[in-house]
Amino acid sequence: MKHVVIAGGGFGGVYAAMHLGKLLRSVDALDVTVINRENYMVFQPLLPEVISGSIDLLHCITPIRRLCPGAQLISREIEEIDLQRKVVTTAPGFGPRPLEVPYDYLIVALGTVNDFSSMPGLKEHALPFKNMADALLVRNRIIQVLEEAAVEQDPEIRRSLLSFVVTGGGFSGVEVAAEINDFIYEVRKVIRLRSDEKFRVILVHSRDRILPELTPRLGDYARRILERRGVEFFLDDRVTEATADTVVLKSGRKIDARTLISTVPSAPHPLVTALQCAKENGRIITDPTLAMPNLEHHWAVGDCAQIIQPDGTPSPPTAQFAVRQAAVAAANVVASHRGATGRRRFGFSGLGKAGALGRRSAVVEVMGFAVSGLPAWFFWRTLYWWKMPGLDRKIRVGVDWALDLILPRDLVQLKIDPSESFSLEHYEAGDFIFRQGDPGDRMYVIVGGEVEVIIDEGTATERAVARLYAKQYFGEMALFTGTSRSASVRTVTTVDVMSISRSDFESLIGNIPGIKDVFEKEISRRYRELTSAGIIK
Amino acid sequence: MKHVVIAGGGFGGVYAAMHLGKLLRSVDALDVTVINRENYMVFQPLLPEVISGSIDLLHCITPIRRLCPGAQLISREIEEIDLQRKVVTTAPGFGPRPLEVPYDYLIVALGTVNDFSSMPGLKEHALPFKNMADALLVRNRIIQVLEEAAVEQDPEIRRSLLSFVVTGGGFSGVEVAAEINDFIYEVRKVIRLRSDEKFRVILVHSRDRILPELTPRLGDYARRILERRGVEFFLDDRVTEATADTVVLKSGRKIDARTLISTVPSAPHPLVTALQCAKENGRIITDPTLAMPNLEHHWAVGDCAQIIQPDGTPSPPTAQFAVRQAAVAAANVVASHRGATGRRRFGFSGLGKAGALGRRSAVVEVMGFAVSGLPAWFFWRTLYWWKMPGLDRKIRVGVDWALDLILPRDLVQLKIDPSESFSLEHYEAGDFIFRQGDPGDRMYVIVGGEVEVIIDEGTATERAVARLYAKQYFGEMALFTGTSRSASVRTVTTVDVMSISRSDFESLIGNIPGIKDVFEKEISRRYRELTSAGIIK
Repeated sequence: MKHVVIAGGGFGGVYAAMHLGKLLRSVDALDVTVINRENYMVFQPLLPEVISGSIDLLHCITPIRRLCPGAQLISREIEEIDLQRKVVTTAPGFGPRPLEVPYDYLIVALGTVNDFSSMPGLKEHALPFKNMADALLVRNRIIQVLEEAAVEQDPEIRRSLLSFVVTGGGFSGVEVAAEINDFIYEVRKVIRLRSDEKFRVILVHSRDRILPELTPRLGDYARRILERRGVEFFLDDRVTEATADTVVLKSGRKIDARTLISTVPSAPHPLVTALQCAKENGRIITDPTLAMPNLEHHWAVGDCAQIIQPDGTPSPPTAQFAVRQAAVAAANVVASHRGATGRRRFGFSGLGKAGALGRRSAVVEVMGFAVSGLPAWFFWRTLYWWKMPGLDRKIRVGVDWALDLILPRDLVQLKIDPSESFSLEHYEAGDFIFRQGDPGDRMYVIVGGEVEVIIDEGTATERAVARLYAKQYFGEMALFTGTSRSASVRTVTTVDVMSISRSDFESLIGNIPGIKDVFEKEISRRYRELTSAGIIK
Repeated sequence: MKHVVIAGGGFGGVYAAMHLGKLLRSVDALDVTVINRENYMVFQPLLPEVISGSIDLLHCITPIRRLCPGAQLISREIEEIDLQRKVVTTAPGFGPRPLEVPYDYLIVALGTVNDFSSMPGLKEHALPFKNMADALLVRNRIIQVLEEAAVEQDPEIRRSLLSFVVTGGGFSGVEVAAEINDFIYEVRKVIRLRSDEKFRVILVHSRDRILPELTPRLGDYARRILERRGVEFFLDDRVTEATADTVVLKSGRKIDARTLISTVPSAPHPLVTALQCAKENGRIITDPTLAMPNLEHHWAVGDCAQIIQPDGTPSPPTAQFAVRQAAVAAANVVASHRGATGRRRFGFSGLGKAGALGRRSAVVEVMGFAVSGLPAWFFWRTLYWWKMPGLDRKIRVGVDWALDLILPRDLVQLKIDPSESFSLEHYEAGDFIFRQGDPGDRMYVIVGGEVEVIIDEGTATERAVARLYAKQYFGEMALFTGTSRSASVRTVTTVDVMSISRSDFESLIGNIPGIKDVFEKEISRRYRELTSAGIIK
C-alpha cells in the first residue's frame, strides 16, 4: 500500500482528493489522506453572504468527509513538511505527541494566509476576512457595534461605532461592503438606532478603479450602484495603520471607525515559506504538469503555487483555477503510481468572472460578454449554486435563499467568551490609553513606544508626572488596590502595549512566588518617587 | 416617562416584556428595557437537538428585539442591582465606563447558573449544558473526539475518547444522552471509526430511576428504550471528581472518559445571591402577586424566584411556569403604574410534562394521561413547535426538521481558537502531568497538592528526584531551552495546577523585567541542587 498525502483542505486539496477518489481502483493499492486544520471546506464565493445572514452560517462550508468519503481526514494543524524524509508532521491532538504521516506522493494545497505584519495596529484591531471563523467574527462585531450604538450616549463614540471601513476593492471587498451596507439598512429599525443617525460604509482601494479584474465599464457600474446606496469609496489610497477606534490612510486621512475589515493582503503560508523548494514571489514553482521541479512525486496546486496559464501569465487565485489544477495533479499522481509515461498538462485559462453587489444585483463577465444588474445576479446565484459541492449543501443553500425572500434578517450575536489572556493593542501618538477615574481592570506593559502619565488636578490644568518606555509597565496599581485609575496615561509616540486582565494578573501574583515581589518593589519605588516630588502627599 | 427594567432575557424576562408590550398604551408613558448578556433568548427545550444537528445551531435561539419590538434591549452583562437607589449597573461596552440604568419598576428574571465549585475538577474538565454556547461546545467536542479517535493509535486513549458521561437524569440529561448516542451511530461510518470499535454513552443519576418528574412506568419505559440502543445507566450514584480523562463517581467507580457533560447542578445567580432581599434556598421569596415583600415596585419571576403553586409547593423551574409568571408580573406592573387597586395572583399548576428520547420516540404525561413512543414524539414536536416564539423561528425549525428527514447529519466542527491563556487543570493522585521526552509546550504552577519529579534511567527503574508543593512550579525548563521534557512529573495527591502556554510565558518574560530573573534564579538553584545530588553530571 502506498500513500498520497494532500496538505490543505481548500478547493485545491479537496478537489484533488475527490478526483483521486474517482480515478483510483482498489488494485492501485493507494490510499489518500487529507490533512487540514478544519474538518470542512469553505465555499468562499458565498462567504460574504454570511455577514448579512442571507445564507446560514454553516451552509457555506461542507464537511470534507462527505465530499471525499474515500479519503482519510486528519483534522489537525500541520507543523512541518519534510520533503527529504517524505513525512508530514501534525500538531498533537489530546495526547502530548505530534503525529508523523509518511507519504509516497504529496500534493501541496495550502493556499495563502492573511498577513498584517507590515501595518502597525492591523494585527491587533483589524478583522481579516478569509475563512469561516472570520465571517462569524465580522458578523458578530457588526451586530455588537450596532447594539452599542443604540445604547451609547456620546455622539463621538456613536459615530465611530457606526463607521465601517473595508479594505480591498476586489470581488471579496466589494461584496463585503455591499453586504454590510444592506444589512444595516435592514436592521437599523429593529436595533432602534435614532432615526436621523448616519452610518458610513467606506471602501478603501489602492487603485483608481474597483474590481480591476473586470472591464472598466463594469467596474464603474458597480461603483455607481453602490454609491447610490450610500457606500463611500476612497480610491488610490490604502490603510497604513489602525488603532481601536481610528483607521489611518496613506494619504494622511483619518477615519473614526471601530470596525476595520481587511480583504487584503494575502501572504504565503508559513509552511510554504519553510519548504525547501524553488519559489517565485513566495509561490511554489511548478512545471506544466504541476509537479515541483527536481522533486519526484511532489505537486502543488491552488493559491500556494505559481502555475502558468496558456497565455504565459500566472493563474489568478480563484476557485475555478484551483479545481482544474486539482484535476490535473490527481491524474498525474495516478499516472506516476501506475508507471504510465504520459502526464496531463495544465491548460485552462478561465471562463469568466462574477461578483455580487447585494440587493439582487451583480456584475458578470463571461466569454467576452459583460452583464450587470438583475440578470447578472440571477446568473451569479445559479452558477455558484450549481458549483457548490455536495447535494445536501445545494439543498440547504437553496432553502436559505428561499427563506431569505420571506423572513426578516436574523440578528443573533453568537458571543464567544472573550479570551481573558494577554492582548496586544496599538495606539497612535496622543491617544489616551486610560483616563484618571476610569475603573481599573487591566495592566499594561509597553512593547514599544513612549507614554506619559498625567494627573488632572481638578482645574483645567493637567500635569505630566512621568514618562515610560519599552519594558516598563503601568496600570498595575489599580489592580493591587482595587480602586479607579489615579492618573491618565497618554501616548507620546505610536505605542504598542501588551495588556493583562485583572484575573490573569491575580493568577500570576497569587501563584508564582517572586512575581508579586517584582511588582511590589516597583510600586513602592514609584510611590517614593511621587512622594519626594511632592505629587503624592 | 417612567421606566420598567427587566433583568434577564430567558423565558421569564422576555415574556414579561412581550406582555408589557401588549398591555401598555402610549398614554401610560412607561418604557420597557430588557438587560441581558446575549441579544437572543434560548428556547431550551430544543437545545439538545443542536448536538446532533437535527435543528440548526441558530434556530433554537430567537433575537430578543424581534420578540419584543417595543422594548429597548441592552445586551451587556449586569454588574450590580441596587434596590435602594433603584439602579441597575451594566458592564462597560467599548468605552471604559459602566452604564447606570435607573428604574421605577423592576422585574428580576435572572434564572440560575451552573456551579461546579463543590466538585474538584469539574470546573476545569466538565462541559456544562445550559445555554447556546454550551451546546455549541458540546457538539464541537463530540466531533473532535470522534475525529481524534479515527486517527489515534493507542487503544487506551481511543477508549477514553469514545466514552461520554452525562450527569443528571432529568429531561435535559436524558435527551442529551439520547442525542449523543444517535449522533455517533449515524456518523461513525463517515468518520471512519474501526468497524469493531465500541463507544459508550453513560448516564449517571443520583436516584434509582430516571425522569423522576414522570410516573415510574414512563421513567422505566424511557430507560428500557435507551438501554436497547446502548446507553448505560449508573443509577444511585453521582459524579464527585473529574480529570482530563477520568470521571470519578461517589461509589468509587472510575470511568475513562474524555467527555463529561453536566446538566446538574444549578446554583443561584450571583446577582440574586447579592440582592438584599428575603430568599429561601437561594431563590427570591415572592407574594402571590409575585411582588418581592417589603419592596415597592419589585417583582421576581422564573427560576430565580420561589413562587408557590396553588397546591402549596414551589413552581418547578420550567418554561411553562416562567411564561405564566411573566404574564402575572407584567399585569401587576401595569396595574401599579396606573394606580389600580386590584392585583393579579399567580394560580397555575402545570399542564403536563414531555421529553424526547431521540429517534422518533418520546414520553409525555398530560392531564393524567401517559403516552410514549411515536405518538408521544409527534405530540412533543408539535407542542414545542407551536410554543416556539416568533413566526420566523417556527418556519426555520419546521424546515430544519423536514430537511433532517432527507439529508445526512452535518459534521462541521466550528473550531473557535483555543484561548492561549492560563488554564486550570485537575489531576487525581498517581496521574502523569507529563512524561520524560514529551515535547515541552506549557509550564505548570501548583495551586494545591503535591507532585513528584521522576527521572527514567533507561532501565525499568525510575528515580524520584524531587517533590513539589503548592506555589512551586515546574516544566519551565523545557520552555527556556526549547527541548523536550527532561523528567516526568507524577501527582502524589490530587493536584490542581495552573498551566501557562509557551507563548504567554514568552510574552511575560520577554516584556516584564524582573520576571525573567525570578525564573532564572529558580532554575539555576534547581540545577545546582540536581548537580550536587549527582543527578545531573
